[in-house]
Amino acid sequence: MNNKLLVLGTIAYDSIESPSGAVKKILGGCATYIGLSASKFKTSCCLVSIVGEDFENSYFKLFESNGVDTSGVHFVSNEKTFFWSGRYLDNFNDRITIETQLNVLTKFKPVVPNKFLDASIVLLGNLDPNLQLDVLNQMKNPKFVIMDTMNFWIEGYRTKLDEIISKVDLISVNEEEARQLTDSLSIIDSAKKLQAMGPKNVIIKKGEHGAILFCDKKIFQVPAFPLKKIFDPTGAGDSFIGGFAGSLSEKKQLSFQAMKTAAVKGSAIASFTVQQFGTKELENLTFRKLNKRIKEFKSLTNFEI
Amino acid sequence: MNNKLLVLGTIAYDSIESPSGAVKKILGGCATYIGLSASKFKTSCCLVSIVGEDFENSYFKLFESNGVDTSGVHFVSNEKTFFWSGRYLDNFNDRITIETQLNVLTKFKPVVPNKFLDASIVLLGNLDPNLQLDVLNQMKNPKFVIMDTMNFWIEGYRTKLDEIISKVDLISVNEEEARQLTDSLSIIDSAKKLQAMGPKNVIIKKGEHGAILFCDKKIFQVPAFPLKKIFDPTGAGDSFIGGFAGSLSEKKQLSFQAMKTAAVKGSAIASFTVQQFGTKELENLTFRKLNKRIKEFKSLTNFEI
Repeated sequence: MNNKLLVLGTIAYDSIESPSGAVKKILGGCATYIGLSASKFKTSCCLVSIVGEDFENSYFKLFESNGVDTSGVHFVSNEKTFFWSGRYLDNFNDRITIETQLNVLTKFKPVVPNKFLDASIVLLGNLDPNLQLDVLNQMKNPKFVIMDTMNFWIEGYRTKLDEIISKVDLISVNEEEARQLTDSLSIIDSAKKLQAMGPKNVIIKKGEHGAILFCDKKIFQVPAFPLKKIFDPTGAGDSFIGGFAGSLSEKKQLSFQAMKTAAVKGSAIASFTVQQFGTKELENLTFRKLNKRIKEFKSLTNFEI
Repeated sequence: MNNKLLVLGTIAYDSIESPSGAVKKILGGCATYIGLSASKFKTSCCLVSIVGEDFENSYFKLFESNGVDTSGVHFVSNEKTFFWSGRYLDNFNDRITIETQLNVLTKFKPVVPNKFLDASIVLLGNLDPNLQLDVLNQMKNPKFVIMDTMNFWIEGYRTKLDEIISKVDLISVNEEEARQLTDSLSIIDSAKKLQAMGPKNVIIKKGEHGAILFCDKKIFQVPAFPLKKIFDPTGAGDSFIGGFAGSLSEKKQLSFQAMKTAAVKGSAIASFTVQQFGTKELENLTFRKLNKRIKEFKSLTNFEI
């Protein structure tokens, strides 16, 4: 197993409103959050994505200064970068999309750079299942394939989605997506049904309530860090899975124990992401701050019997 | 510190409908669930409550065979026992009350038996804050006072409620009640505001997502046991706090460490309660089964960093 991590996903401009404020046209997209989160670990992470000519060069520099390889990010002239705008309602659990401009995303034909064709871990971020399959087919014998998805693909692309789900080792979805995929109200039942569809490992994300990791028949409760104030939940799930994949890649281990640790580290990173709009907090996140929080997770959940 | 636990609360007949079935006129009430849960520990637990002449003698025997002292349960002729009926909706998180017959409860003048006036731990279950104050005033120098409440008392009895809150060591409420009491959306903020009202210790219950325990500035995430199927959430919160108080009473310790352990044990007991209608699962709960589940909680939350 090598420490290469190949990430497929979007790079976007986001405009976001939340009860804590509003921002316009900031750096976003699942590949962005995944890459910046994975870069907190000793992994060689490469993004496969696409941007338009309005994409600022400083953002490429941001990725590279964090050790994130952008050789798989296609730059297209005469097109604009994918744009999303949304609003979070009072409780931060409901989100409405105000506008989606696919722009350059409609032309996306992902190509995995040669250097990363042998990556041991592949993370297929939330995107068209056809593109997820395309990237997976390019890879040479990956050891561990992780995928994310969302309601849009569940509703309109079910056949292709089921095909990619059958081929991955871990699927990471939120509670609502798990219910939609399995037509079940019980989270345990949903996880079992998802496992029966292919992946031996399932993560069900529960926002402020953490997540649950299912590995075969074993279960782990991933805590969420209790925060006094949230600014922007955008990218929390991507930060979580990016940190999770980064931690596994650094350790070069795929045991239940390694996944438990990875899940806690992913949750710790996500707890920083939501404390500012966009990627700001992630950009400023030092190893010292991250390690301190990971230790706080330990005291938050540790008990004697 | 002695191992006496004095519990104030209701004993009731419940009729319950849930997506998993329906039952009529079964044993219920917060004192019932608290007492039966506390009885899983080496504690001397006494209930202060009231029942009518329709209350079956076999239920007194049930309490006594579980070591729960009923000398503080007032039996009233020519009156009926408090009755509640309700329905749980599809997700088990919403509950509607179909009918409440206060019956004998309107005559309740709680009297703490002499033998328990010196109990070290007092648990004031969800009831009229005037009765909670009345019982607290009868006690001789209790070491640790725990209280529960609900929206009905928050809306209509706020002054008295604030008075009792200011006098207890721990308040245990659910998320919604915490928000209502503190006018805050953030769970952390709510807990701080509740602490400012008096109790140094706060538990905020989150149903299937577990609970959070706040002791001064320390925080502990209490996990919930992931269950495939729930039958009846009635009494889950009472089982939790009953187990919590029972565990503290057995250990005769009030440290953060002891409270963390107590919270996990309370959560373990509650996870049994919801697996059957009413008190059935609690009645059949052996120490072996309980200890096995408590160990499962450990593996569910334990990780290495």
